[in-house]
Amino acid sequence: MPHRVRRLMATVFASAVILSIPTAGQTAKPRARDLGVPFAGTPGPLNAITDVRGVTVGHTTIIQDLRSDAADAIAVRTGVTAVLPRGLDSIVRPAFGAWFSQNGNGEMTGTAWIDDSGFVEGPILITNTHSVGVVRDATIKWLLARQKSLGAQVWWGLPVVAETWDGWLNDINGFHVKDDHVFRALETAADGRVAEGSVGGGTGMICYEFKGGIGTSSRVVGLGDAAYTIGVLVQANFGGRSQLTVAGVPVGLEIPDLPAYGSLGDPVADRGSVIVVVGTDAPLVPHQLKRLARRVTMGLARTGSVSGNGSGDLFVVFSTANAGACRPDGLSQAEMLGNDLLDPIFAAVVQATEESVINALVAGETMTGQGGHRAIALPHDRLQDVLRRYNRLALPERREAGVR
Amino acid sequence: MPHRVRRLMATVFASAVILSIPTAGQTAKPRARDLGVPFAGTPGPLNAITDVRGVTVGHTTIIQDLRSDAADAIAVRTGVTAVLPRGLDSIVRPAFGAWFSQNGNGEMTGTAWIDDSGFVEGPILITNTHSVGVVRDATIKWLLARQKSLGAQVWWGLPVVAETWDGWLNDINGFHVKDDHVFRALETAADGRVAEGSVGGGTGMICYEFKGGIGTSSRVVGLGDAAYTIGVLVQANFGGRSQLTVAGVPVGLEIPDLPAYGSLGDPVADRGSVIVVVGTDAPLVPHQLKRLARRVTMGLARTGSVSGNGSGDLFVVFSTANAGACRPDGLSQAEMLGNDLLDPIFAAVVQATEESVINALVAGETMTGQGGHRAIALPHDRLQDVLRRYNRLALPERREAGVR
Amino acid sequence: MPHRVRRLMATVFASAVILSIPTAGQTAKPRARDLGVPFAGTPGPLNAITDVRGVTVGHTTIIQDLRSDAADAIAVRTGVTAVLPRGLDSIVRPAFGAWFSQNGNGEMTGTAWIDDSGFVEGPILITNTHSVGVVRDATIKWLLARQKSLGAQVWWGLPVVAETWDGWLNDINGFHVKDDHVFRALETAADGRVAEGSVGGGTGMICYEFKGGIGTSSRVVGLGDAAYTIGVLVQANFGGRSQLTVAGVPVGLEIPDLPAYGSLGDPVADRGSVIVVVGTDAPLVPHQLKRLARRVTMGLARTGSVSGNGSGDLFVVFSTANAGACRPDGLSQAEMLGNDLLDPIFAAVVQATEESVINALVAGETMTGQGGHRAIALPHDRLQDVLRRYNRLALPERREAGVR
Amino acid sequence: MPHRVRRLMATVFASAVILSIPTAGQTAKPRARDLGVPFAGTPGPLNAITDVRGVTVGHTTIIQDLRSDAADAIAVRTGVTAVLPRGLDSIVRPAFGAWFSQNGNGEMTGTAWIDDSGFVEGPILITNTHSVGVVRDATIKWLLARQKSLGAQVWWGLPVVAETWDGWLNDINGFHVKDDHVFRALETAADGRVAEGSVGGGTGMICYEFKGGIGTSSRVVGLGDAAYTIGVLVQANFGGRSQLTVAGVPVGLEIPDLPAYGSLGDPVADRGSVIVVVGTDAPLVPHQLKRLARRVTMGLARTGSVSGNGSGDLFVVFSTANAGACRPDGLSQAEMLGNDLLDPIFAAVVQATEESVINALVAGETMTGQGGHRAIALPHDRLQDVLRRYNRLALPERREAGVR
Repeated sequence: MPHRVRRLMATVFASAVILSIPTAGQTAKPRARDLGVPFAGTPGPLNAITDVRGVTVGHTTIIQDLRSDAADAIAVRTGVTAVLPRGLDSIVRPAFGAWFSQNGNGEMTGTAWIDDSGFVEGPILITNTHSVGVVRDATIKWLLARQKSLGAQVWWGLPVVAETWDGWLNDINGFHVKDDHVFRALETAADGRVAEGSVGGGTGMICYEFKGGIGTSSRVVGLGDAAYTIGVLVQANFGGRSQLTVAGVPVGLEIPDLPAYGSLGDPVADRGSVIVVVGTDAPLVPHQLKRLARRVTMGLARTGSVSGNGSGDLFVVFSTANAGACRPDGLSQAEMLGNDLLDPIFAAVVQATEESVINALVAGETMTGQGGHRAIALPHDRLQDVLRRYNRLALPERREAGVR
Repeated sequence: MPHRVRRLMATVFASAVILSIPTAGQTAKPRARDLGVPFAGTPGPLNAITDVRGVTVGHTTIIQDLRSDAADAIAVRTGVTAVLPRGLDSIVRPAFGAWFSQNGNGEMTGTAWIDDSGFVEGPILITNTHSVGVVRDATIKWLLARQKSLGAQVWWGLPVVAETWDGWLNDINGFHVKDDHVFRALETAADGRVAEGSVGGGTGMICYEFKGGIGTSSRVVGLGDAAYTIGVLVQANFGGRSQLTVAGVPVGLEIPDLPAYGSLGDPVADRGSVIVVVGTDAPLVPHQLKRLARRVTMGLARTGSVSGNGSGDLFVVFSTANAGACRPDGLSQAEMLGNDLLDPIFAAVVQATEESVINALVAGETMTGQGGHRAIALPHDRLQDVLRRYNRLALPERREAGVR
Repeated sequence: MPHRVRRLMATVFASAVILSIPTAGQTAKPRARDLGVPFAGTPGPLNAITDVRGVTVGHTTIIQDLRSDAADAIAVRTGVTAVLPRGLDSIVRPAFGAWFSQNGNGEMTGTAWIDDSGFVEGPILITNTHSVGVVRDATIKWLLARQKSLGAQVWWGLPVVAETWDGWLNDINGFHVKDDHVFRALETAADGRVAEGSVGGGTGMICYEFKGGIGTSSRVVGLGDAAYTIGVLVQANFGGRSQLTVAGVPVGLEIPDLPAYGSLGDPVADRGSVIVVVGTDAPLVPHQLKRLARRVTMGLARTGSVSGNGSGDLFVVFSTANAGACRPDGLSQAEMLGNDLLDPIFAAVVQATEESVINALVAGETMTGQGGHRAIALPHDRLQDVLRRYNRLALPERREAGVR
Repeated sequence: MPHRVRRLMATVFASAVILSIPTAGQTAKPRARDLGVPFAGTPGPLNAITDVRGVTVGHTTIIQDLRSDAADAIAVRTGVTAVLPRGLDSIVRPAFGAWFSQNGNGEMTGTAWIDDSGFVEGPILITNTHSVGVVRDATIKWLLARQKSLGAQVWWGLPVVAETWDGWLNDINGFHVKDDHVFRALETAADGRVAEGSVGGGTGMICYEFKGGIGTSSRVVGLGDAAYTIGVLVQANFGGRSQLTVAGVPVGLEIPDLPAYGSLGDPVADRGSVIVVVGTDAPLVPHQLKRLARRVTMGLARTGSVSGNGSGDLFVVFSTANAGACRPDGLSQAEMLGNDLLDPIFAAVVQATEESVINALVAGETMTGQGGHRAIALPHDRLQDVLRRYNRLALPERREAGVR
C-alpha cells in the first residue's frame, strides 16, 4: 500500500486545488473578538482547540471548477479536516472520550465503540456527507501503515468520521474526496494556529445562511492550583438566517440579505448540520465527558439554533489527560476531577462552542459554487453596527481590559 | 397574593396554610411580556400550558412558620403541583410521552416505563426533593380510588413524580408534604389561567438566585391548515446570578444584588434544578416527543444556564393527540406529523421554555424562610432599565402590535 | 393521617410478623447446587453477593393475615431488602455505579443521577411496587440521621429504590410498608450468609409461576495474580411457567402443575418483574459497569425469560473498589481494568445472575396469600428428576469435586 | 458448495470469484431443524427473514486466492450482504426502525438518524470491518442513481452499513470489496430462500470457533385473527468454542476439536461480532421496535454468548407495516399494536435469533484462508450425538409432529 500511496502523491490531479492549509504564517484574518463581539470566559493563547496541548489539526481543502456555466456549474468545494487528540501519538494511545447526538440527521462513525470502550481511538475526521465512507476506510489504511511502522499489531479499526452536507455549493454527488486527501489531512496535522472558515471539511459549508465552515475557540479555567484548557472545533453548516444570534443580539433578523438558500423560498428548513469536537486536558473519565458533550447543545443554542430536523448535530469529546489509562490488558490508574468541580468546565464548553460558531462565520468569505449557488460572508461592518445598536459592541474597551 | 395568603393563614389547619390556588380570579400580576421582555413566536390565549386543550394544573401551596427566630427559623415553604395531560381523563387514557435528562442530579420517577411504553400514564407531579416518595405513593392511592370509581381494574401504577430542592427556604427535612396535599393538587387541577411564582411545588424555589418557582408559557404554530399548541410549565430552581440572561441581555451581571446563596461565598455552584413539563396537541409519536424533550435544553440555555453539576434538569413531554392510541390489547391508529414539519415545533419548545423561566422570575415575590434565608424578587423596574439600555425593551410597541 | 400512623405504631407486632431475618444460624436450606443443578464458573465461599467484601444485606419481612376468609383473604406478604455496597460506610463513600433497563415496566429511583455522577450514593433498596415512595423517603430520613451523627453536612438525597409487584399474594393496595420497616432493613444489614426466597422485598414474589423472591450467587474470577469477586442479588418475580429453563433444560414444560396465575387463563402475560443488583470488587469505572449491567439480560435469558412487556427488568451495578475515588471537590485516582480483561467478568455476571434466579426458586416455599391466591414451591425432587432425564443432574460428582 | 465455487472460480473475472448467490434452486443443504435441533415457536414457510413479505436479500461472495503459500497465503474470503426491507421500494418508502448496541465493538452507520427519524431509509448492508466505508459510499451512489430513475429529488443519504471482522480467514487489509460488489448485492436481492453460511458478508466469518457466517430464521405468531411474521438474519462471527450452547446443551464443551483461533492459545477472547437484522410485518412504531432490538441479546444468550469485549453486537429492526407512514411533510396514520400484545413477538425475536445463529453454524463448511488459517464446520453427526446424549435430539419424532 505505501507504494500506491506514493505513486498517487506524485500525480495529484493537475487541475484540482488541494490545499493543505499551513497552520502558521497566515495573514491574520480578524476573528470574532477582533470585531468586538463579546464572549464570556478566558480563552487560551490561540483561542483554538490546539490550546489543548498535544492536539493537532490538519485540513485538506479541495476547490476545483469542473464546469463553469452559471446555473449548470459543477464545482468542487469540499475537503477533509483531521483532529488528532494526541497528535501522531493518538495512533497508539487512545484518549478517554464520549459523544452525544442532539439531533441525529447526520453521521458519526465509531460511536458505539466510544460508548463501550470509553475511548476515542485514533484521529477524528470531518468531511462531507457522501464522503464519510472513503474517509473512514482511508483512515484505516493510514492507521495500518502507521501502526505497522510502530511495530504494533492491530486487529481492526473503527475510526470516528463525521460529516455535514455541502451539496449546495459542492458537487457532492461527484464523490471528489479520495484516499490521498485523507492522508494529507492526517499527515499535515499540526499544533499552532488553526485555519478557519472555508477550509478542510468546512470548505463548502453554510451557517445561518452565511458562509460557514470551520471555527475554533478555547477556554482556560482555574480549579484550585490547576488550570485546565477546553478547546472546541466546529464544522458549522446549520441554521436559518432569521435565527442567528450573536452575543444575545438578533443579528440574523437585522441582516436578512441574501440568505444562501433563499432561492428555495421562505421559510427554509434546516438543511445543514454541525459537528463539534471538544478536547480538554482536564482529567475526566468517560461518563464525565458525556456530560460535557451535552453542554455543546447549549453553546449552539446561544447562537440561535433549535437543532432543526434536517441537522445532524453530533458532538464528540475527548480528554488528553490520563495518557497511560488505556492499557487494554492490565490495570491502570486514571485521574478524575470531582463532580462538584465541573461547573466551570461546563461553562467553558458552552462558551467555546458559541465562540467557535461565530468564528466560523467571521472567517467566512463569499463563495460561489455548484449550480451557481452563492453564500455570502457575514459582513463584518454590519455585524459591528448591529452589536453597537444593542450596546453589545465590546470594542475597544473590552480589549483594553484584557479580555483577549 | 401575600394578602390572600395571610388571610388563609389565620383559618386553615390552625397554623399550616394549605393553599389550592384558584386558577382564575387572581388579581392580575404582570408577566414578562407585560414588562416588555421580547420573545419570539406567538403564544396561545393564556400563554400557559393550559392553552393545550385538556391540560389541567393544580397547586397545593404549604406555607407555615414553625419557629420564627431569625437564623434558627423553621419555615415550611413547599408544595405540590400536578399537571394532568387530559385532566381527569388522564387516569384511563394515557398520553404519548417521552423524557430527557440534560443533567441527572434530580429525580423523576416513572421514566423507565415512559421509555418503553411510550406513554405518560396518569398525572405528572412536582414537589420538593425529599417528598418525592410520599407524593408518588399518594398518587397511586388517588389513582386506585379514582380508577375503582370508574370500574377499571388496575394492576399497578408507576407515577411520574419529579422534584427540585427547596431546602434553602423550606424545612425540607421536616417532610411536611402529606398525602392530602397531593390529593388536593390533583383534585383542584383545572384548566384556565395558571398561577405562577411561589405556588405549588415551586413555593420555596430559587432561580438565578432570585425568587423562582412555577412559570408557564405557550406557543401556537401553524402547519398548513392546522394550528398546534405547545405549552410549557417549569419548576425553576436553578442558576447562579451572574448567568441570568433575559432576551439575550446579561441581566444577572447588571443586577448583582443580594444573590440568594450569597452567604455561602462566591462563586456558588448550582444548587438547584429545573423540571420542565411540555405538552402539545400536535400528533407526535413517542420517538418524536423525545426530540422535543432535547430542545428544552436550548430554551434553558437562552436564559443563561449551563446545566450545573448540582442541577437536576429533567424534562417530560406529552402529546394529547391520539387519545385513542392506547389500546393495550388491540390495534390502534396513531396520527403523526412528518419529520420535516417539526422545525416550528422545536422552535416553539425552545421559545416557550425560555419564556416560562422568565415568567417564573417575574412572578417571584421576595420570600424569607428556613434559617432566615431570603430570596429577593427580580426587581421589575431594574429589569426594564437593563433591557432598555440594551435596546431590548419591547414596550409598548410590541404590546400594541398585539403580540400578547 | 398522622393520627392513623400513631395508632398503627401502637399495634405493630401485635398481629404482624416483622422479621429481620438473621443472616447466620439459619437451618441450612438446600440451594440449587445442593440439588445438583450444574452451573458454570466458580462461586465465592458463600455463593452470595456478600462474597464481595464490604457488602451487607438486610431484610425486613412483613407477613400478616388481616382477614382469612379464603377468596376474600386480606394478607400482607411483603417487605424491604437493603443492599449496602460498603455497609454503613456507604453513607459517606459512594461506589462507582451504573444501571440498565432491559424492560422498563418498573421503577428504580435515583437512576438519572447514577448516570451522571457515576456513583451509587448510599444503599440500594427493593420493595413492592406501591411502596417505593415510602421506602425512598424513609431512606432519606435514615441517611440524614446517620449522616448527622457522622458530622457530615448533606444537602439532598436521591436514593436508589426499586420494586417488583407482589399484588397476587400481598395486599399491595393496603400500603403496609412503613418507615420502621425500612430502618430495620438498613440497620440489620450484615455480611455473611444471605437469606433467600420469601424474605424482605421478595416475600410475596412469584417467579415462573412458582414461588420466587430473593436469590443470590457469586463468582470469583482470576485475572493474572488478582482475583475478583462478582456478586448478584435478585428479587425474582417474573416469567410464565412454560418458559422456565434450568441448566438449559425445559423444566417449566416438564412441571406444568399449578401455575400461580393459572386462574387467569392461559397463556398468561408476564405479570412480574425482576430487580438485579450486581456488586463487584473489580476496579471498574462507570462506563465499564454499564457494560456489566447489560450482561444481566443474558443471565435472565438463560433461565428462559424474554423480558415480557409487563416486566420491569431493571439492573444496578456497583464496584466497591476505588473507595477513595469520590472526592466531590478534588482530584482523585481511580484504578481501572483494561477492557480486554472484561470477558471473564462478563461471564461471571451472566452466570451469577442465572444461578441467583434458580436459587430464588429453590428457596421458595409454597405460600397462600391475598384473595386465597397460592404460589407453589418448585418441587425439588421433580426438578432433579427432570434434570436427570436430560443428563444434566450434577449430583453427586460435582459436589465431591468441590464445586461448592 | 466448494464444488460449485471451484467451478465458478474458473470462469468469473479470471481469478476473482464474485458470486451473486442464487436465492432459489440451490441443492438443499440441511438446516438445524433437519438435524433434529429442537426450537420453540412456529417458523414461516421458508424459515427465513424473507418470510416477511417484501423483504429481499442479496449476497455478493468474493473468494479468491492471491497467493497460496500455506502460512503466507493471501486469501480473499469476504463479501457483501444486502437486506432490503421493502425490496426496491425501500428506496422511496422508509420502514419504521430502531437499533440497539449490546456491545459496541463494531460499526453500524446510520444509527443516529434511525433514532431520531424512526425510520430505516433504504437498504441495510453487512460486510467486513474494513470495508464499511466503501460499502456505505457505494450504497449512496446506488441510491442516487436509482432515485434519479424514479424522479425523486434526494438531498442526502445516511445508509445503514454494518460489519464483522473476517481478518482471520480473509485478507481484510487488502480492501477487496469494491463498488461493484455492493451494486451486485443490491441488484440481485430477491425474496425466496436465503443462502446461508459462507456467503455474502458472512463469507469469511467464524462463530464459536466453527465456520460461521449468514444464518436466518423466522417465526409466525397469531394475535387474535391476525398473524404476524418475525424474520431474523444474522452475520455470525462471535464466541469462543467452550461457550457454544445448542438447545440448552453444552455442545461447545463436548466438541472441543480444532477451535479456529486455537493457535493463539487458550482461553481466547471474543474476536468476533454479530450483526442481527430483524424484520417484521407487525405494525409497531419505533419505540416498540427498539424493545424488539433489546430481545436479540436474549437469543444470542441462548447460544452461549456473553457479548465479549471484542464483539460488536449491533442489532437493527424494521417493520414493513405502515408503508404510508413516512410522509415527511404531511400527516400520516400509523397502526400500532398495544403493548400488552408484545410478549409473543418478543419471544419470536429471541427464538428466531437463536435459530439463525445455529443455522449459520449448520450451514458452515470448513474453510482455509488467509495465512493458512482454518475454521472447521460444525460436524453434523457429532452435534446430533451430543443432543441425543442430552435427550434433546428432536429427530424424527418432532419432524413427524410437523414442527417444521
